[in-house]
Amino acid sequence: MMKEGLSYGEFGLIDQIRRRFGDIPLGGMTGIGDDCAIIPQGETRSWVITTDMLVEEVHFLRARISPFDLGYKSLAVNLSDVAAMGVAPCASFLSVALPEDLPAGWIEDFTEGYHTLSARYGVPLLGGDTTSSRQGVAISVTAIGQGNNENIKRRSDAQENDIILVTGLLGDSAQGLRDVLSGRMDSPFVALHHRPEPALEEGIWLGTQPAVHAMMDLSDGMASDLTHILEASRLGAEVSVENIPTRVSVELAVTGGEDYQLLCTADPLFVPDLQRGFEARFARPLYAVGRIIAGKPEIQWKQHGRIVHPDWKGFTHF
Amino acid sequence: MMKEGLSYGEFGLIDQIRRRFGDIPLGGMTGIGDDCAIIPQGETRSWVITTDMLVEEVHFLRARISPFDLGYKSLAVNLSDVAAMGVAPCASFLSVALPEDLPAGWIEDFTEGYHTLSARYGVPLLGGDTTSSRQGVAISVTAIGQGNNENIKRRSDAQENDIILVTGLLGDSAQGLRDVLSGRMDSPFVALHHRPEPALEEGIWLGTQPAVHAMMDLSDGMASDLTHILEASRLGAEVSVENIPTRVSVELAVTGGEDYQLLCTADPLFVPDLQRGFEARFARPLYAVGRIIAGKPEIQWKQHGRIVHPDWKGFTHF
Repeated sequence: MMKEGLSYGEFGLIDQIRRRFGDIPLGGMTGIGDDCAIIPQGETRSWVITTDMLVEEVHFLRARISPFDLGYKSLAVNLSDVAAMGVAPCASFLSVALPEDLPAGWIEDFTEGYHTLSARYGVPLLGGDTTSSRQGVAISVTAIGQGNNENIKRRSDAQENDIILVTGLLGDSAQGLRDVLSGRMDSPFVALHHRPEPALEEGIWLGTQPAVHAMMDLSDGMASDLTHILEASRLGAEVSVENIPTRVSVELAVTGGEDYQLLCTADPLFVPDLQRGFEARFARPLYAVGRIIAGKPEIQWKQHGRIVHPDWKGFTHF
Repeated sequence: MMKEGLSYGEFGLIDQIRRRFGDIPLGGMTGIGDDCAIIPQGETRSWVITTDMLVEEVHFLRARISPFDLGYKSLAVNLSDVAAMGVAPCASFLSVALPEDLPAGWIEDFTEGYHTLSARYGVPLLGGDTTSSRQGVAISVTAIGQGNNENIKRRSDAQENDIILVTGLLGDSAQGLRDVLSGRMDSPFVALHHRPEPALEEGIWLGTQPAVHAMMDLSDGMASDLTHILEASRLGAEVSVENIPTRVSVELAVTGGEDYQLLCTADPLFVPDLQRGFEARFARPLYAVGRIIAGKPEIQWKQHGRIVHPDWKGFTHF
């Protein structure tokens, strides 16, 4: 989901909270800092858990998104976080705060959208909470996945010389948001913005590939998200702008959020095999956009081999 | 937390959602209908998971509760659900939606309250989400526990002739809410309402007792909560009003919410031992208030052995 800039900055607040809780032993669990937390389950397997909150007028405009799509998207963004760990989702929890002014059938349509995606991937709804709200809809979803430890991909596992790969076109969702905001609701990009498809099969498949080192999902735009991998792995990156797969502008593709494609880094020796395997399995390319280098956790943008300094604004919000 | 009556009724909505998702196989997991969902972990142990949402002006008045207490309480109500399953909590997740008009230091104090309870029981914060909100604070907490399967207590396991027991005084929190609403902020009950103590040690101990059959926490008041055990177990109950432990009115004690004491049912043969063991361990009584009987899932209230029909209103909200 898009993130609204809090006055203290979302990441600043998360860092502050993480520091405050640093005195409580994790007992082998992995906490804040990846797409999901990781809880070991015996010697060979782990649970992964993620939670996301969606707030009306911050993450969505109720007048512009159907309740079906909102229900679908609420689960999709969480399943995407599970996929980004390289494992399969197994359950979800849904909490909703609902104002009195919802039209008849709204909650049924919302439930229907959430159910449609749940049923497609066989992910049962195990619980949640329902309450009223004085103003505006708020939605909180928790998703759980599980898998073998060797398949779990962390943001911190990128290695120098790794190739940086993305699973699909970037910027469609951001273009969809622009179209929503300018009232062009019939634009094909709007549907991609409102009903994103989490890359579940792709995530599970990439999880099984030992050549894949680090992985995450693209929720805030590559310019921001790749930096999280670089910070966690204490490495830099160079990205070739002409290699970024997009049918909108490169700026929108790298700064726009909510694509929910996967971003991973992989051993260069095995990348050709990985790309062939991905294309054979999913009938579309696994795009190589850059490589991991030594250095500060920053992205060096290149165009046809020459360093460029694009003046890209961050993803902006309504 | 108190529940605001949604126009379609909270329990009606939950039932509707549960029915809609009945077509997705649970694969051995236990979903909606208890204090926590249950996910098996190997042959002998399970995870339990719960999530609760707190919304400003529905569950709390920001002007009347300190951010420290609100942080403390947000975690406490979730840990109480874990305790009600008879197992120990091991992790939590916190999502918050924050409006722009929070005073300086509010989020730090909120975090401090949440941290204080986390640290007391060694429960790490593994993740969550932070976002802004156009109006009002919304909080969503997910708590996870784990334990041996034989210790997990379900609402559905009450048996005919079981004695119904509660772990402490009832009605203090409801009196505290009344005092909050009438501005008597110096009342000792207000502190009990704003900083409830989850019965974690008691829940874990009762979990280890094979004589204890069904268990849940008292969040909506015994009149409402006991009915959930009766419905899940397909049995009735008789409760002696003179046995209800309270220092406020019996009406407030049985209809008032948010006590977060535990309610359990136990084999009558072992209840004296259970009460002695509880008192030896916790230095206070385990109160017997009634017994489980055959029949419709309803509570028959008795006073000195005679059936009475009290005209109790449900717990009301601001």
